[in-house]
Amino acid sequence: MKNNIKVFAPATIANIACGFDLLGLAINGIGDEIVIRASETKGITISKITGDKGKLPKETNKNVAGIAALAVLKHLGLEKELGFEMELRKKMPFGTGLGSSAASSVAGAMAVNEALDRPLTKRQLLPFAMLGEQAADGAYHADNIAPSLLGGIIFCRDNPSLDVHRIYAPKGLYATVVLPEIEILTKDSRNVLSENVSLKAHIQQSGNLGGLIIGLINGDFDLIGRSLSDVIIEPQRAKLIPHFYAVKEAALGAGALGCSISGAGPSIFALNANSLEAEATARAMQEVFKYHNIPSRVIVSEINNEGAILC
Amino acid sequence: MKNNIKVFAPATIANIACGFDLLGLAINGIGDEIVIRASETKGITISKITGDKGKLPKETNKNVAGIAALAVLKHLGLEKELGFEMELRKKMPFGTGLGSSAASSVAGAMAVNEALDRPLTKRQLLPFAMLGEQAADGAYHADNIAPSLLGGIIFCRDNPSLDVHRIYAPKGLYATVVLPEIEILTKDSRNVLSENVSLKAHIQQSGNLGGLIIGLINGDFDLIGRSLSDVIIEPQRAKLIPHFYAVKEAALGAGALGCSISGAGPSIFALNANSLEAEATARAMQEVFKYHNIPSRVIVSEINNEGAILC
Repeated sequence: MKNNIKVFAPATIANIACGFDLLGLAINGIGDEIVIRASETKGITISKITGDKGKLPKETNKNVAGIAALAVLKHLGLEKELGFEMELRKKMPFGTGLGSSAASSVAGAMAVNEALDRPLTKRQLLPFAMLGEQAADGAYHADNIAPSLLGGIIFCRDNPSLDVHRIYAPKGLYATVVLPEIEILTKDSRNVLSENVSLKAHIQQSGNLGGLIIGLINGDFDLIGRSLSDVIIEPQRAKLIPHFYAVKEAALGAGALGCSISGAGPSIFALNANSLEAEATARAMQEVFKYHNIPSRVIVSEINNEGAILC
Repeated sequence: MKNNIKVFAPATIANIACGFDLLGLAINGIGDEIVIRASETKGITISKITGDKGKLPKETNKNVAGIAALAVLKHLGLEKELGFEMELRKKMPFGTGLGSSAASSVAGAMAVNEALDRPLTKRQLLPFAMLGEQAADGAYHADNIAPSLLGGIIFCRDNPSLDVHRIYAPKGLYATVVLPEIEILTKDSRNVLSENVSLKAHIQQSGNLGGLIIGLINGDFDLIGRSLSDVIIEPQRAKLIPHFYAVKEAALGAGALGCSISGAGPSIFALNANSLEAEATARAMQEVFKYHNIPSRVIVSEINNEGAILC
């Protein structure tokens, strides 16, 4: 057993325009950290949470990181033998569409596994991290959890069976994200969605999804660009995000391959073919919010190919 | 200019379970043949049609092969200078869901191009072959035309712009098709389809489409098998094909990776991981129709990677 271990799980962009509930990718420079230590108290105790403005519960069974960590410990049959205390350091805002609860869940599962000297592989941790995420939003999809844990771009063929597949991103692909200081609840973002889709839109969206997968695998940036289009979810959610279309136009104008809502929003992401265009895209997107007096933060990142790490 | 040239365009399986209007593949051993000769009459004349039981029009502008051939000649600005007569040898039944009109259209476009010593590439012939297909069923999708012309498995990201992409099939992948003697009109097959899809079904179908593409590219036969599922179109069209579910069950029981309706039906296809299982699947599928006194024909084929050829 190791002591005083620190793990980090990155933020993620889910959906990636045309892959609602199916696609997600991990980014660098933003995510959650957990420090874990041996404790006299058996099971998992959350000793401290920072960066959450006092909003997150410390009770293990109400905190996504606690739920995921305890699930790993229970799976290994050690919850009555060993005790850990965890310090959760939120290093990203929540409710922004960047997979905050997923990052915490993944970090919780990783922390226990690392403290125990890695009895499980990352892939084996997936269902336990999912339990944390599920507690947060009620749904069971891996489009944030899997990339935060495994890194890269992940395609979730089937969420219930966790049939997830890594798609290796071409070198040079950058993600740009702007996080405006606007609050949206994932629940509201789900509620605006119609339960039906026209067959025509289904075909168009599926065409783009297939195009995006083929474009990513072949490193065909033009095809990636043509495929980054969401005709189903974005038109319904865009109205929840002030100035969304102006931001999108600015991103495309600055050379982005495509631009859409990150997860349930309000964060907006773009993909770029190189860092220069990514930087220009970030400035252009932020400029729109600045013009409307909405504070925002931008992140420019290569695809994070590592996922959760031991720091 | 060459004379007395013979070309062949293969039959195709469109949709491939989860890729309605988006996916198609070419098979061997069945398709259409055209023999083309110089003629005194300018433009395109259809001199003879065999194998059609007298059902196809010989007027150039009403015959899909004639329309496609003439479109190529016009594109080259030669329709008033040169004349060709074509003999269309239907070597496949029509209305079976194996892309009969596509094979004729492709053969028509290919024949003129070959007679002129190949001024255009196959890829450049695509829009002209499409004009023939469009005349046949009113719609503009390349899921039969593109594989018949180019060979292999083709993904059509966007039909209007003919944004089509070859997916290289793993070695050993076999297609099995059973053609029962039942008549279905593509028009009827389209008419049974609801204009709407539930968001849940859209996500499930998209998951399978992405899984199929990744499985094909990675040569992951298990993933191909899990992904060969159609929750949108097949349930609506299956009722037009007597004993469909019994045939499907027989195919899966014989070891097929998956089984669904070929194009608009009534042909039923399966994919297999090797020729032995493909042969067993073919026998099992045909057995069901035989039991119900419905004559049928079976084809077992590797993926046809050549598409239309000069014979």
